[in-house]
Amino acid sequence: MIKAAILGATGYAGSELVRILSAHKEAELVWLASHSHAGESFSTVHPAFRGICDQVLEDDDIVKAAEAADVVFLALPHGIASGLVSADILSRTVIIDLGADFRLHDADVYESWYKVTHNSKELLPRAVYGLCELHRSEVASARLIANPGCYTTCSILTLYPLVRAGLVEECGIIIDAKSGTSGAGRSAKMGSMYCEVNESVKAYSITSHRHTPEIEQELSLAAGETVRVQFTPHLIPMDRGILVTCYARMRPGAGQEDVSRAYHEAYDGERFIRLCDAPPETRHVAGSNYVDISWKLDGRTGNIIAMGALDNLVKGAAGQAVQNMNIAFGLDEAEGLGLVPGAVV
Amino acid sequence: MIKAAILGATGYAGSELVRILSAHKEAELVWLASHSHAGESFSTVHPAFRGICDQVLEDDDIVKAAEAADVVFLALPHGIASGLVSADILSRTVIIDLGADFRLHDADVYESWYKVTHNSKELLPRAVYGLCELHRSEVASARLIANPGCYTTCSILTLYPLVRAGLVEECGIIIDAKSGTSGAGRSAKMGSMYCEVNESVKAYSITSHRHTPEIEQELSLAAGETVRVQFTPHLIPMDRGILVTCYARMRPGAGQEDVSRAYHEAYDGERFIRLCDAPPETRHVAGSNYVDISWKLDGRTGNIIAMGALDNLVKGAAGQAVQNMNIAFGLDEAEGLGLVPGAVV
Amino acid sequence: MIKAAILGATGYAGSELVRILSAHKEAELVWLASHSHAGESFSTVHPAFRGICDQVLEDDDIVKAAEAADVVFLALPHGIASGLVSADILSRTVIIDLGADFRLHDADVYESWYKVTHNSKELLPRAVYGLCELHRSEVASARLIANPGCYTTCSILTLYPLVRAGLVEECGIIIDAKSGTSGAGRSAKMGSMYCEVNESVKAYSITSHRHTPEIEQELSLAAGETVRVQFTPHLIPMDRGILVTCYARMRPGAGQEDVSRAYHEAYDGERFIRLCDAPPETRHVAGSNYVDISWKLDGRTGNIIAMGALDNLVKGAAGQAVQNMNIAFGLDEAEGLGLVPGAVV
Amino acid sequence: MIKAAILGATGYAGSELVRILSAHKEAELVWLASHSHAGESFSTVHPAFRGICDQVLEDDDIVKAAEAADVVFLALPHGIASGLVSADILSRTVIIDLGADFRLHDADVYESWYKVTHNSKELLPRAVYGLCELHRSEVASARLIANPGCYTTCSILTLYPLVRAGLVEECGIIIDAKSGTSGAGRSAKMGSMYCEVNESVKAYSITSHRHTPEIEQELSLAAGETVRVQFTPHLIPMDRGILVTCYARMRPGAGQEDVSRAYHEAYDGERFIRLCDAPPETRHVAGSNYVDISWKLDGRTGNIIAMGALDNLVKGAAGQAVQNMNIAFGLDEAEGLGLVPGAVV
Repeated sequence: MIKAAILGATGYAGSELVRILSAHKEAELVWLASHSHAGESFSTVHPAFRGICDQVLEDDDIVKAAEAADVVFLALPHGIASGLVSADILSRTVIIDLGADFRLHDADVYESWYKVTHNSKELLPRAVYGLCELHRSEVASARLIANPGCYTTCSILTLYPLVRAGLVEECGIIIDAKSGTSGAGRSAKMGSMYCEVNESVKAYSITSHRHTPEIEQELSLAAGETVRVQFTPHLIPMDRGILVTCYARMRPGAGQEDVSRAYHEAYDGERFIRLCDAPPETRHVAGSNYVDISWKLDGRTGNIIAMGALDNLVKGAAGQAVQNMNIAFGLDEAEGLGLVPGAVV
Repeated sequence: MIKAAILGATGYAGSELVRILSAHKEAELVWLASHSHAGESFSTVHPAFRGICDQVLEDDDIVKAAEAADVVFLALPHGIASGLVSADILSRTVIIDLGADFRLHDADVYESWYKVTHNSKELLPRAVYGLCELHRSEVASARLIANPGCYTTCSILTLYPLVRAGLVEECGIIIDAKSGTSGAGRSAKMGSMYCEVNESVKAYSITSHRHTPEIEQELSLAAGETVRVQFTPHLIPMDRGILVTCYARMRPGAGQEDVSRAYHEAYDGERFIRLCDAPPETRHVAGSNYVDISWKLDGRTGNIIAMGALDNLVKGAAGQAVQNMNIAFGLDEAEGLGLVPGAVV
Repeated sequence: MIKAAILGATGYAGSELVRILSAHKEAELVWLASHSHAGESFSTVHPAFRGICDQVLEDDDIVKAAEAADVVFLALPHGIASGLVSADILSRTVIIDLGADFRLHDADVYESWYKVTHNSKELLPRAVYGLCELHRSEVASARLIANPGCYTTCSILTLYPLVRAGLVEECGIIIDAKSGTSGAGRSAKMGSMYCEVNESVKAYSITSHRHTPEIEQELSLAAGETVRVQFTPHLIPMDRGILVTCYARMRPGAGQEDVSRAYHEAYDGERFIRLCDAPPETRHVAGSNYVDISWKLDGRTGNIIAMGALDNLVKGAAGQAVQNMNIAFGLDEAEGLGLVPGAVV
Repeated sequence: MIKAAILGATGYAGSELVRILSAHKEAELVWLASHSHAGESFSTVHPAFRGICDQVLEDDDIVKAAEAADVVFLALPHGIASGLVSADILSRTVIIDLGADFRLHDADVYESWYKVTHNSKELLPRAVYGLCELHRSEVASARLIANPGCYTTCSILTLYPLVRAGLVEECGIIIDAKSGTSGAGRSAKMGSMYCEVNESVKAYSITSHRHTPEIEQELSLAAGETVRVQFTPHLIPMDRGILVTCYARMRPGAGQEDVSRAYHEAYDGERFIRLCDAPPETRHVAGSNYVDISWKLDGRTGNIIAMGALDNLVKGAAGQAVQNMNIAFGLDEAEGLGLVPGAVV
């Protein structure tokens, strides 16, 4: 039985980890922490968990967590994890960081997009970018796993086969993303109030969203050359779910069959990726670890429109973190993740 | 492995049965039927289920279902089941009817509230009212289980301890119920359109909702005398969930401690009932088989306000149906129902 | 042209006042204040108003407001207005207070429900309870108008004809109320976050909501004897609207026709009250100053179920405040309030 | 007083026309028709209008409408208007068609996108495309006004200044559009059910949406050469509102100032277009005739992201239709359209 700890357990990603791990057969939650709720029970903060997880919350303390657990999940605001993790910690436990601190290989890129100093650059070479479908073998032997962002996971997985196979032009890729409100995190701020979000849609962080360099890093690796994307996120009046609608220009000569082959070569056999005929809908993946992907070529314009949908808290955060844990500990990759989408209704 | 069949599998209750049974360890879905989608695969109708349940749908045929399965779930409009079930069918399979036809012991009451003729009155004595917490032992040996209605389950479980213990006056009980829109079923009608439901709340079926006699039947049995309730349902702009707010006049001499004792005596040990300090919220039970119950006495008015919350599709329909199956087949009552509420977000 | 000022202009009730008054033909907004946004323009805070109201916000200062304006609307948290208003202020301007401080005639009742000290008890005899349909003539000559609460307006108007005509028993009245989230005000708090409100319903302030004594005060006046009500509010995932479902026991001998006569006698000729055959829906009044009222007697139980719906920000706050201004200044009572409900969709 | 008639009055666009015209000072509704509700009163179908519009609905009959009214609004499914309108009708009344039949100058384009035969091609030369800000002077003398589509109005107005000024490359323009559910119209179909739309987002009509040729027609006229766009609409869980996020490649040498100048030259003085600093939000225009437009250049990618928001039922349908009527009849263009966005909450 793998012992698991969570720092930042009461946020939306943290509590989704609790939801998934409380039904995991090979892992047990031994240590939960929340800075703002230390001393309270988890189910006091989240009454949905009464009888499921009534553990008392500790204060965030990575040393104690590392002592208690084989794997420590960090679900903390960016900039904090890089000050907590150290070589010593990594010698004692596996870290799966749901934040951004170890996702970008280049500390300068991190600092320029996040406007903070990176506090443990020396660990970056040891960090593995935990997009399971792309880096499975590296994850298997990693001690420090940087769990990808929600928008990032959806964007990369949707575009990866096209870029890897060289079917689309690298420049000019547009990613128009739509996210439910849980992506904004669990803290009381005006922009996340019910009456400010409900019955409206808007773009935000135009040209400057921090998931951009993460997407570019991975697509560039896949392409073997620099890929630049235009990434624009939008806030949607719903709880969960991300849909990305990606636009790219087809390379001359590339056609329908090449695209189909590229997707199938990349993803056939993947248990959490479903290639669909119809455009994906976020409700079809809500609550599950699935990514639904679909595409359409437009002969009139020469573009391909590729779409992906996932649950930002599951495959976009906690679900993928558990998938990474399963890989790192040699378990069945799908253990605890047989979550049936709860969204027929 | 128990073989299960579903008639009416593509409706909201039917597909929730598929969701639950597809993760059930002791049962397998061997036969699915839908009159309007016969010949299509289940996952074509409900793309959320791609890779989870891709079975081809049969047409509704209870004889074939009974041949194929140890248990047949009926998720059909009221009035149909009573024409399908027969002594012969019951000799070959266990029927769990999610509709209304076998819930009321008195066929006259049924016919007067439902305005249809009951086609198999002779079977009524064999039908067990499948509110698990109240009729567990009868369910254990039943061949024909009438799964209770969604409003009914919530209302009865919330009021049962008070009525059984004689703590409140039988006359004058008010049940003000609020339900998500999935309760209206999966058929295209104007009143269930997004723009007609969204951003609004209304009462409906005032004084005449068909769940009323079902509630009165069970509370009268518990009280040992006739109980009349005023039941008023409301439509809420959300997918899932029922909240009932019940008002009753405390009997002279009955107090806080009596109430607490009554609830604990009735429900301590029940795995799906949670007695709560704070008022229940439907999101805390969404996706799960829990009923959350809370109450408050008002010294100023002499009333008790008792509240219950459940997911209308789970404990209010498919979850309770599986719970009944588990009981009837001698399985762990909670098998397949360890559903963690998905509603922290 | 009447000069109007608003203190607390950026809250939901305040900005609704701006919306209504910006289209009012006999009043002009000369002075707007917001403590937290002083120095910003109103349309910076509320971009919906670009080009409609771009005034720079002052800090809350009732003396300056009274100098500038013939009427000052106070849209402030309870407990503040009673410290601002004075006989001197009232000699210079008319005050319409959207808060609670001057609604209850008895300061002790105020202090016991609100848990604060009332700072200007001497003004209470001068305050008029501004429920226009009940106190029109007093409002006409008032200098200090206490605008009723949102739940209160809806509850009183729904029950008033029944109570005044003595058709129902005074004891045992139940008011089960449902409100959109704007009723919680415009401040960043966890309980009003999108993901905490969406897809859920719950009761709150059970037995203790502060609108209770206000309802009892007015219904007792109408009945000529003490009326006690059980008032339970619920939070609904929508922006605007209140629905109250009221339950009362019919007096022996009182019937359908008496009820109909009582409502028509009370409200025929009222421009903002619509007596409806079907149960009212909040979307049918959203954005307007209407109250829709309907009722049904239940011969089976001896109860009457009376329902009322209004927009909590219009007839429940800003609309009624403008209606009061119109009455107090001798204008057409409906000026500026010809708001067509925007809620067909 | 202008006499106005509406065919298709009970749909969402039709009833929005009723909402606006019922408060219009220079027009009166003299004739309302609805094929499916003929004989009922308008307020029976839409109880929100009780006391505002209680007229009895006629059956759709353009001859009677033309006899009764100076202007007839057609709010009918596409393909019907082209069979109703004739030179004779136009000699007797002004037609403002909210459908698609007269929007495209080229009947072949119409027939190829709509897959129906156009029944009055001879009238196309007389039809004016009623995008008021672009074709004001033609509208002023028109007898047959083709009111633009909702997506179209938003897309064209957002891109027009850029295209007209030649600041962006004509090829490669991407329009990613998001719409509330009222855009799907008021008819009971599965895809518009509450539980199918709520808590989800999806793209639809990818590469094939019928508003595409309309956008291309107008942008090509503005550019003086053929413009091709990639238009992708999405369904959003909200009632009203459209947001378009447009992506275009800046021409070499074109910069921030050129863009700003182009927008101001195009729209300064326009009463319903607001150029905004922050990204537009649909709630800021809901219920009003405004279009909010904003843009941002990305030096990193060389793209401009231009965004526009409007209410699909107002500026995207009924509001613009009334604006066209005002222009055609020589009234103040804004009469009846001083609608304050109702969407602070």
